[in-house]
Amino acid sequence: MRIAVVGSGALGLYYGALLQRAGNEVTFLLRRDYEAVSASGLTVRSINGDFKLDKVSAALRPEEIGETELVLVGLKTFANDSYQELIAPLVGDKTYILTLQNGLGNEELLAELFGSYRILGGVAFLCANRGEPGTVHHLGAGRIELGCFADAPESLLTEVAVMFRAAGVDCRQVRDLKSARWQKLVWNIPFNGLCTLLNAPVDRLLTNAATRSLVRDIMLEVIAAANAQGLQEPIPAEFAEKMLVFSDGMGPYRPSMLIDREEQRPLELDAIFARAVAAGAKSGVQLDKTSMLHSLLQFVSAEC
Amino acid sequence: MRIAVVGSGALGLYYGALLQRAGNEVTFLLRRDYEAVSASGLTVRSINGDFKLDKVSAALRPEEIGETELVLVGLKTFANDSYQELIAPLVGDKTYILTLQNGLGNEELLAELFGSYRILGGVAFLCANRGEPGTVHHLGAGRIELGCFADAPESLLTEVAVMFRAAGVDCRQVRDLKSARWQKLVWNIPFNGLCTLLNAPVDRLLTNAATRSLVRDIMLEVIAAANAQGLQEPIPAEFAEKMLVFSDGMGPYRPSMLIDREEQRPLELDAIFARAVAAGAKSGVQLDKTSMLHSLLQFVSAEC
Repeated sequence: MRIAVVGSGALGLYYGALLQRAGNEVTFLLRRDYEAVSASGLTVRSINGDFKLDKVSAALRPEEIGETELVLVGLKTFANDSYQELIAPLVGDKTYILTLQNGLGNEELLAELFGSYRILGGVAFLCANRGEPGTVHHLGAGRIELGCFADAPESLLTEVAVMFRAAGVDCRQVRDLKSARWQKLVWNIPFNGLCTLLNAPVDRLLTNAATRSLVRDIMLEVIAAANAQGLQEPIPAEFAEKMLVFSDGMGPYRPSMLIDREEQRPLELDAIFARAVAAGAKSGVQLDKTSMLHSLLQFVSAEC
Repeated sequence: MRIAVVGSGALGLYYGALLQRAGNEVTFLLRRDYEAVSASGLTVRSINGDFKLDKVSAALRPEEIGETELVLVGLKTFANDSYQELIAPLVGDKTYILTLQNGLGNEELLAELFGSYRILGGVAFLCANRGEPGTVHHLGAGRIELGCFADAPESLLTEVAVMFRAAGVDCRQVRDLKSARWQKLVWNIPFNGLCTLLNAPVDRLLTNAATRSLVRDIMLEVIAAANAQGLQEPIPAEFAEKMLVFSDGMGPYRPSMLIDREEQRPLELDAIFARAVAAGAKSGVQLDKTSMLHSLLQFVSAEC
């Protein structure tokens, strides 16, 4: 498949590299890594084994790429106001768009701009960071849960899922994309939020009794809001404990938002926090802890 | 009056200096400032005018001071387990003890150890920091609200209040010490808490819309808990706005807990946070935001 990766952070570089290695024709829209990747290719340091792509197709502007079959969107959500500029030149009649971004509201905005029939959504459970230009570090996990946003054909979803699986990605088709998104928020809201606020990796939060308990409380709050969204199946409260134990295995992982803070980038507060709080409120669930965390992060973000 | 100042941080040094200047016989129990004060006296840099006490009576151990008329307690509350060791040698039949410490539970513990009939409580609204050894900076405010804890004679309270006023302190006798304590918590919980968590002075919190709003919400939560404590008069909700406007005048003030963090001292979390949350819960008011702030500060404290 011909694929354009828009938003080549850790996530875009990692999945794009796997897809290219599996034989797909991938072009990366790059900024920071453009020169390194053009000159020397792309290196993946992965818990599943390192590999290097010597020849990588890189572009600085979407017009250099032109129409493609699949646009893989890995942009930071604070850059979603660039959707039109970055994606429109890639879209033709038969182009599909898959967003693997964090948080809520991405599929909706893409559908508004490009038509809902071509929008797929995916939730990536991936621990990865960028290294020096041209290198991405895959530190753990990597599962993708894929779903149709609205009226995209199920057959296309299957085709994309098969493509990811052929590339070695644990990729599952889910009937309820909304549920997958909220399940990821159950992790993202406490861990991206608290790690960024406290400038600490996952394990330090989990070994401190006060913050471990706070993480659990925030998870339960998000689960309550999720279950008010009309999911096909409710998320059980035990999911919180399961995620805590899963996170114990992450060690000193630094979530993406903490790295955004360290690198003085904007934080993905709207997609992960504001929209979750708003969705909760709309369905009668007050996300008080999430909302307080959001306020604290707005301060942190303004100080960056 | 013969006075021993126990806990010679900014508060103890400042009020002790004023009391000595007004003619009282003051001895300071010192640690960090002992050598500087013994050698060169005590300097007060104050918005009300600087002054210097050339000769100051300083002690390293309470046994050097012996029985006194009034013990002025300015200890950090995390040192309250030293009450017995530091105060007992100062107490005779006619000794009274005044605590000007932060938070809840100090009078109770002093009463348990030394008898409730000799315990006075005061709430100091003081912006002061220690400077180099032997110097204290008075940056703003300074009012004390004095009350009897239990069965101390009212006449004694009046005598102490008159003494403070003669020393130039705006000192008011209040009938409801509990109300004064909670009014100070309305300030201390959000500002000590958030400034310490976010490593930022008062003005930065107030000029950011998200944290200004959060400060207000926390104040309202504390007011609700205060009003469940059987105060003689409820604290009106407008007190929050009044405190916000008052705090706007503080500029880049760094609350004492932030300075404790900077100087890697323990934080006064039990007296200011844990006891307030417990008092609220006992009277049916959940202090959710205060409780979350407490959890976050426990993490910060453990990392210091």
